[in-house]
Amino acid sequence: MAHIKVPDGVPGIRALLAFRPETAGPLGALADALLHAPNNLPPGQRELIAAYVSSLNDCTFCQDSHAAIAACQLDEGEALVASVIRDPEHAAIPDKLKALLALAARVQQGGRSVRPDDIARARTAGATDVEIHDTVLIAAAFCMYNRYVDGLATFTPRDPAAYDPMGKRMATQGYVGISQAQRQADVPQPSR
Amino acid sequence: MAHIKVPDGVPGIRALLAFRPETAGPLGALADALLHAPNNLPPGQRELIAAYVSSLNDCTFCQDSHAAIAACQLDEGEALVASVIRDPEHAAIPDKLKALLALAARVQQGGRSVRPDDIARARTAGATDVEIHDTVLIAAAFCMYNRYVDGLATFTPRDPAAYDPMGKRMATQGYVGISQAQRQADVPQPSR
Repeated sequence: MAHIKVPDGVPGIRALLAFRPETAGPLGALADALLHAPNNLPPGQRELIAAYVSSLNDCTFCQDSHAAIAACQLDEGEALVASVIRDPEHAAIPDKLKALLALAARVQQGGRSVRPDDIARARTAGATDVEIHDTVLIAAAFCMYNRYVDGLATFTPRDPAAYDPMGKRMATQGYVGISQAQRQADVPQPSR
Repeated sequence: MAHIKVPDGVPGIRALLAFRPETAGPLGALADALLHAPNNLPPGQRELIAAYVSSLNDCTFCQDSHAAIAACQLDEGEALVASVIRDPEHAAIPDKLKALLALAARVQQGGRSVRPDDIARARTAGATDVEIHDTVLIAAAFCMYNRYVDGLATFTPRDPAAYDPMGKRMATQGYVGISQAQRQADVPQPSR
């Protein structure tokens, strides 16, 4: 049970967005700017960074949500996403994305853990200033979202299939302008 | 020198807000909703939580900025802020604020580090659901802002006095609607 009185059966961050609309707006707008808005780095790759950082923070809800969204956006789907989360250095992804995932892993450890070598590796692989900026901010932002979701002990669906409908919708619609009713509609109620 | 090409001599997160306006909007709106907007918990106490979490994350720019803002907002000023950052359990602050700072310290470690006892202590001391929610989200958000500022190696003024004019302004104006020129005007240029 969540640590505060959130709507019954609403999973993860959605329960918290419904609880506190004043912070839901900026949190949704930030996720949209980082993960969904048009950008040089494809949305599926940005979602992979989000899912990978969430796995490092051991946040099941965020990992499974963003893995489902990435699987919808990347041609290679679920198997590729799973291989990246397991071992990004040996996954079948471009060198630039490997370097950005390694940079994200440093940020997850702490801001001061990033070394000039991490930045140099990303640049050598072709990353731009905006891609380096966005990777650092995506990783940092998921250090927030993950702590928010687990720090308040929100409901985490255990069935991986529960994340598929949300993944399909978020992959196309993004993170803003979704009504609360829609947010709640596509995830099964928990049995208690 | 910062890892990406940000405006010269602009300190900390301000350089990053100027670099990427697309994410600056939601980042400012989130800080304003959490720290400055009217709320049951006084702004000075919320700024203390931000400064304390920043100290745990070893982020000098965020710690000194938010300590300066808190010092402007709390009657007891700088000495109290310094004592809270050093040792919140023995500082001259209400029990509720001590409990919320202890909760924030758990969140800084990770979302799963929060225990039912931490929540129970805050409730016994009189904290409401909104205050518990906001404390968790302030702590989580500073795990983001701190990583963002240090992960990109932004410029950190070393002279504590450099933070005073900004503290005075932010304490009254908050985090939105400040022009970029204003953001840059009140911190001395670094000597290089």
